[in-house]
Amino acid sequence: MVKIGGNIIDDEQLLSSFLKKFAAIRDKKILIHGGGKLATRIAEKMEIPQQMIDGRRITDAETLKVVTMVYAGYINKNIIAWLQSLECNALGITGADGNSILSHKREKAGIDYGFAGDIDQVDAFWFSQTLSNGQTPVVAPITHDGKGQLLNTNADTIAQEIATSLSAFFEVVLIYSFEKPGVLKDVENENTVIKKLHLGYYKELKETEKIFAGMIPKLDNAFKAIETGVQKVIIGKGEELDMLIIGNSGTTISHE
Amino acid sequence: MVKIGGNIIDDEQLLSSFLKKFAAIRDKKILIHGGGKLATRIAEKMEIPQQMIDGRRITDAETLKVVTMVYAGYINKNIIAWLQSLECNALGITGADGNSILSHKREKAGIDYGFAGDIDQVDAFWFSQTLSNGQTPVVAPITHDGKGQLLNTNADTIAQEIATSLSAFFEVVLIYSFEKPGVLKDVENENTVIKKLHLGYYKELKETEKIFAGMIPKLDNAFKAIETGVQKVIIGKGEELDMLIIGNSGTTISHE
Repeated sequence: MVKIGGNIIDDEQLLSSFLKKFAAIRDKKILIHGGGKLATRIAEKMEIPQQMIDGRRITDAETLKVVTMVYAGYINKNIIAWLQSLECNALGITGADGNSILSHKREKAGIDYGFAGDIDQVDAFWFSQTLSNGQTPVVAPITHDGKGQLLNTNADTIAQEIATSLSAFFEVVLIYSFEKPGVLKDVENENTVIKKLHLGYYKELKETEKIFAGMIPKLDNAFKAIETGVQKVIIGKGEELDMLIIGNSGTTISHE
Repeated sequence: MVKIGGNIIDDEQLLSSFLKKFAAIRDKKILIHGGGKLATRIAEKMEIPQQMIDGRRITDAETLKVVTMVYAGYINKNIIAWLQSLECNALGITGADGNSILSHKREKAGIDYGFAGDIDQVDAFWFSQTLSNGQTPVVAPITHDGKGQLLNTNADTIAQEIATSLSAFFEVVLIYSFEKPGVLKDVENENTVIKKLHLGYYKELKETEKIFAGMIPKLDNAFKAIETGVQKVIIGKGEELDMLIIGNSGTTISHE
């Protein structure tokens, strides 16, 4: 299972190189994609003001419209057409499709995140059945509450929740792709990738503030996946997917 | 199988009333939706000039981006969330998803339609499998050419092609919903609905120019469906779906 973010989605060459490597994976696979800059550009063109709190977009009704169009429409369907041309039988979904991911509107005292979803339940049977039918789910970061409301949902978390739910039935490897070659000891130096990270070491790095703050939510998701049954999590550059899979690149997170 | 157009999509009350009736259908069902005015409004906001020839939108690269966002993203996913809230387990797709509808770029001497698709093949097995798994496909009017290109595709034609392909395995009823209560003898008078239309009568109406010109492509699609195995086609108002199904409203087209 692979999650890609904006740095790959926004760069046609990186995306092309990534999708070729993804399509070539022979095991059952799932792709989860984030947003990218297009949503921001379209919101600007449509003169919808964008507000961010702690790196999360505040999703008012107009912004939800834009992210639904861009994530579930433009990005998702272009990836699907591309994967089909590479003979990967992809099926693009949101969590509303097939009722595959149910969430609720985030409520937190003092902050109104708008139409942001926190996941309640992944339908592991839906994913398992779709995979058994020879299809590769490609998930846009939109879920629903079962009452008719779409909700903007963090793609890293979606990846972790699907991975966890499927780990009851499959041996699951979760790959988080981002712009760095792995978790770095020294954020300024790309040659300091930590090859293997386990919980004890991670806690130590956090305590000594050696880990880049922006990495913490991603690593917390990664360790949550490991603690809930996922076999391993690999973090690195999506365009090196083939190397990540065989352990020749990136940071591998597993049990101690 | 039901096809809805812009008049229902653009009107939240009509859409709500239609979806309730659609969700209540107990037989296996498929929904095909068209575009509506939102794509035009968004194209205007994004300052993309729109050109129409013979009522068909000319789909240049920028327009394809907009229709992919609006049809496959906004409209499709809102319908899905809505149907899920009505306990209809809907799955939203384009023809690229699951490689369900393959088409080629329309080529016609003298006119460049841009990224418009003419259908080559519907994967009846995909639809049949999805229906058997208890899911209701909801199809946006976008297909692909198998080489990575998405193509804007007429929703009436998609409906006819899916209906035809499934008629080899199922008894198929195709419902075309539009803004009139049926095919009218007198286009100015909604009380002149033709209850039953067969090919001989249709030819006669065409010859005597008694049929509204805008109806002809829709009726040609309808008769093509009948000639290729579809049991009957019903044309009328989507918000009267329950009445259309039992034959108490609309025009029914079947073999003579």
